[in-house]
Amino acid sequence: MNREQLVEQINKKKSFLCVGLDTDINKIPSFLLSLEDPVFEFNKRIIDATKDFCVAYKPNIAFYESMGAKGWESLQKTIAYIPKEIFTIADAKRGDIGNTSAMYAKAFFQTYNFDSVTVAPYMGSDSVQPFLKEKGKWAIILALTSNEGAADFQYERLEGGGQLFEKVLSTTKKWGSIENMMYVVGATKAEKLAKIRKIIPDHFLLVPGVGAQGGSLEEVCKYGMNADVGLLVNSSRGIIYASQEEDFAEAARKAARTIQQEMELFIH
Amino acid sequence: MNREQLVEQINKKKSFLCVGLDTDINKIPSFLLSLEDPVFEFNKRIIDATKDFCVAYKPNIAFYESMGAKGWESLQKTIAYIPKEIFTIADAKRGDIGNTSAMYAKAFFQTYNFDSVTVAPYMGSDSVQPFLKEKGKWAIILALTSNEGAADFQYERLEGGGQLFEKVLSTTKKWGSIENMMYVVGATKAEKLAKIRKIIPDHFLLVPGVGAQGGSLEEVCKYGMNADVGLLVNSSRGIIYASQEEDFAEAARKAARTIQQEMELFIH
Repeated sequence: MNREQLVEQINKKKSFLCVGLDTDINKIPSFLLSLEDPVFEFNKRIIDATKDFCVAYKPNIAFYESMGAKGWESLQKTIAYIPKEIFTIADAKRGDIGNTSAMYAKAFFQTYNFDSVTVAPYMGSDSVQPFLKEKGKWAIILALTSNEGAADFQYERLEGGGQLFEKVLSTTKKWGSIENMMYVVGATKAEKLAKIRKIIPDHFLLVPGVGAQGGSLEEVCKYGMNADVGLLVNSSRGIIYASQEEDFAEAARKAARTIQQEMELFIH
Repeated sequence: MNREQLVEQINKKKSFLCVGLDTDINKIPSFLLSLEDPVFEFNKRIIDATKDFCVAYKPNIAFYESMGAKGWESLQKTIAYIPKEIFTIADAKRGDIGNTSAMYAKAFFQTYNFDSVTVAPYMGSDSVQPFLKEKGKWAIILALTSNEGAADFQYERLEGGGQLFEKVLSTTKKWGSIENMMYVVGATKAEKLAKIRKIIPDHFLLVPGVGAQGGSLEEVCKYGMNADVGLLVNSSRGIIYASQEEDFAEAARKAARTIQQEMELFIH
């Protein structure tokens, strides 16, 4: 999916919500466990319930990988089930030397047909570039994450000025364009968004951590929004586990709609 | 596998060779392609041919992941086939927020029963710690990689002194011990090994890039070896694709034996 199509969806749905499909077989309602593929059955119902209110789905690959080959089958069925006009993100945080990153790009863009993959920057240019070669496919680079450990290295002050996450932004943005790169920016650091927008005013940002992890949507919009909205705000547990009973899909729908209605106020 | 067992294998075999199982279905001999699982059949023959000369096998997960669910089945069969006294490394370069890294640890340590996983450090402590919880299982942290892009961030000089890869070493070593952490250190930077050994004198180092990528075994031993040897030196393409004809297994055996014989000279 290209940028124009994504922006069109955002404006049409008045939403920049991304639903995180971090589906844990130990947390899904027990009545699904007797079905042949409980993880897919859960995702299918979540997608049906939330697709009117979101513009992206983001399965975190770890949850599928932990289940072995069966998990990858559930993932493939899930991706095939997501409506074509909704943007898909493989939250995989991959990154390796050039020929190996090319294999990961093949895995997610061809074998699974995702629109985008999250990529870790530590190994530098040749680890990212294989994800930028195909038109309409995106690399979403980790810049500033929302977890506690983010402070260990990302905040490190550099001799040449600025912090490591700023260097990641200013260096990596030269490798691609606003048509094939986005950045992960943790919402719990809303005060840092202004700094980030000075370096990358036009890129889309994927923002985790609104809701469960304590970020404020208002702050994210105030400091992070640009003329094309330029934000995908993710919620995982707050939506998919809004209820863990038989009414989980209806509860997920309500939770997604509530966030969409809040988002609508910020889209002009 | 614990450290004592690994050191025992190294001294017994007079080898610290790790064979990289970066098995690409487009590069394996064509006569294997008619078999039900060509990737596993290739790996099986490579393992039979090289197991006397190496102490570790390291499948790069990207090669398996790119083939979808079938690739993960080939990986599982491969791991089950490796003799129990040989150390196994999932070269996966994973890393995510705590609860998600725990899922990756589950995938590689439980679902696939690897001894170790390579881990990217960018997301900090909670992204690494889930890999350190099980006795006899290891996290192998990317410190200094051997690819061109390593220079983009890993060499960055910090305001507090030193370069980023040194900060990664000095910070992460506090999270575990020499019994559950190793480091990836690119052999093409042998002159940096002395610096690295000042920070982590006792940890094992996983060294890629000897051979195809131009590193010298002699320099690696001179600057990197410690009292327990403390090195696993990897070779992938130089062994598994030593021949791409019907004699590939015999050619792999010879290539592995040649490296082992070179290594023997450095083990006292």
